Amino acid sequence: MKEYTYTLRAKYYETDKMNVVHHSNYIRWMEDARTYFFDKAGYKVVQYEQAGVTSPVISVECEYKNPSTFDDEIGVDVVLEKYTGARITFSYVLTKIATGEIVATGKTSHCFTDAVTGLPIAVKKRLPVFDALLKDALNREI
Amino acid sequence: MKEYTYTLRAKYYETDKMNVVHHSNYIRWMEDARTYFFDKAGYKVVQYEQAGVTSPVISVECEYKNPSTFDDEIGVDVVLEKYTGARITFSYVLTKIATGEIVATGKTSHCFTDAVTGLPIAVKKRLPVFDALLKDALNREI
Amino acid sequence: MKEYTYTLRAKYYETDKMNVVHHSNYIRWMEDARTYFFDKAGYKVVQYEQAGVTSPVISVECEYKNPSTFDDEIGVDVVLEKYTGARITFSYVLTKIATGEIVATGKTSHCFTDAVTGLPIAVKKRLPVFDALLKDALNREI
Amino acid sequence: MKEYTYTLRAKYYETDKMNVVHHSNYIRWMEDARTYFFDKAGYKVVQYEQAGVTSPVISVECEYKNPSTFDDEIGVDVVLEKYTGARITFSYVLTKIATGEIVATGKTSHCFTDAVTGLPIAVKKRLPVFDALLKDALNREI
Repeated sequence: MKEYTYTLRAKYYETDKMNVVHHSNYIRWMEDARTYFFDKAGYKVVQYEQAGVTSPVISVECEYKNPSTFDDEIGVDVVLEKYTGARITFSYVLTKIATGEIVATGKTSHCFTDAVTGLPIAVKKRLPVFDALLKDALNREI
Repeated sequence: MKEYTYTLRAKYYETDKMNVVHHSNYIRWMEDARTYFFDKAGYKVVQYEQAGVTSPVISVECEYKNPSTFDDEIGVDVVLEKYTGARITFSYVLTKIATGEIVATGKTSHCFTDAVTGLPIAVKKRLPVFDALLKDALNREI
Repeated sequence: MKEYTYTLRAKYYETDKMNVVHHSNYIRWMEDARTYFFDKAGYKVVQYEQAGVTSPVISVECEYKNPSTFDDEIGVDVVLEKYTGARITFSYVLTKIATGEIVATGKTSHCFTDAVTGLPIAVKKRLPVFDALLKDALNREI
Repeated sequence: MKEYTYTLRAKYYETDKMNVVHHSNYIRWMEDARTYFFDKAGYKVVQYEQAGVTSPVISVECEYKNPSTFDDEIGVDVVLEKYTGARITFSYVLTKIATGEIVATGKTSHCFTDAVTGLPIAVKKRLPVFDALLKDALNREI
């Protein structure tokens, strides 16, 4: 399973009146980490979107362990957990870089659909290079 | 000039660590008030979008007078200030309903473009009913 | 178990380039529905916050069933699933009102903490009226 | 007048159904660029906040020149335009890095207040190092 670490700084507008990052933003950071994963793996989100494919989210889950706040540097470890040729699952660990403290863990699942019809596609047939790359990423050791 | 009042409640995730609504959200509330204006005026945003027209923002300005925070009920008075057939300008006054206190004032300008080409359109030619309605709204007394 | 239905309209800025509401916003709508639940149940979020108590999110999960987009009217059924005196769990069903189609389902869990120390509180001791109200809401039939 | 360039990548959730970055996010990017400015100038936002000072926004304006979209790399040139000891003004030019195309220009003004009382403070008296640094930044050539 391949893993990358995406880093970010928590923004002012991502905090809420509790003086912590609003929990919905972790869901967004996981998406940013996925985008980074595809970048690093060698096939960008914009590439499959330009090929007329989108990758809707089927499910998300997130467990909140410790708060983070404005200007915290956060590392998001993103791991490709599963890839079936039709669906893909990532897991995430969000860590406060200064302290090593785990902020949150999460998991998201996605399918691949035709951008126009909305129907599921077979990735191997429609995007063979992407398919090979994901299979390779899955099998490689961390 | 026609005026409507859109009302909303400030959301938890719209606040920031200063315990006030983040200033970027007032820009969003002005957009919600425009959507409401078009609804009430009788020609919805989704209608001109379904006709292949979009209305990009050309400029926004906002002056922040008093803070608002979570759960505040806010009234956004939205006034159609100007309509040229190609461009449209709205002004806004945001008020805390419980106290009457002015939270912010703003102004936005927009053009109308073809959703596919991105080129400016003549509203009168492309959307004559919408054009007539906007002219009528402009001339009517508040 | 008590249930309320919070209704909203999807905002322009909540959509993304796929022409659907971005999945992170469903997490926010669930929070809005919780706020509405507390309003209707008779003890507002601002009340327990003014009493120095906050209710951090421990976990969220969301399954995405069908897309929604700008201007869709959405109903969020929110059910109090569990309340232990220290923790609380809500479940949600989000429905497109025009069609009855289910957009998403979700679940969130929360604890109650002192706003200053961040330590867990016993709701019964600190907020006895709120505690009684939640127990009552839990036991009442829908 | 001192200038820095903050760079960012447009996020998926920052786009809207027009397939462009929603105009409200430029207001947020300007804030991120200010945070970067203070970082680079040697006095972080968290420093003056830890000293009990906040810097509310008094006004924003933004002119939208060309759209940007998901994954675009954007440079935000941020210039300290004015500093009076009580108020501060920044101007911004947002550019698509790949093409050099100007995406938007903007201006924001801010005051400095005590975080508890909300009353204006004299920066020179309360934060003399910060005051000296801002004066220095203002006088330095770009």
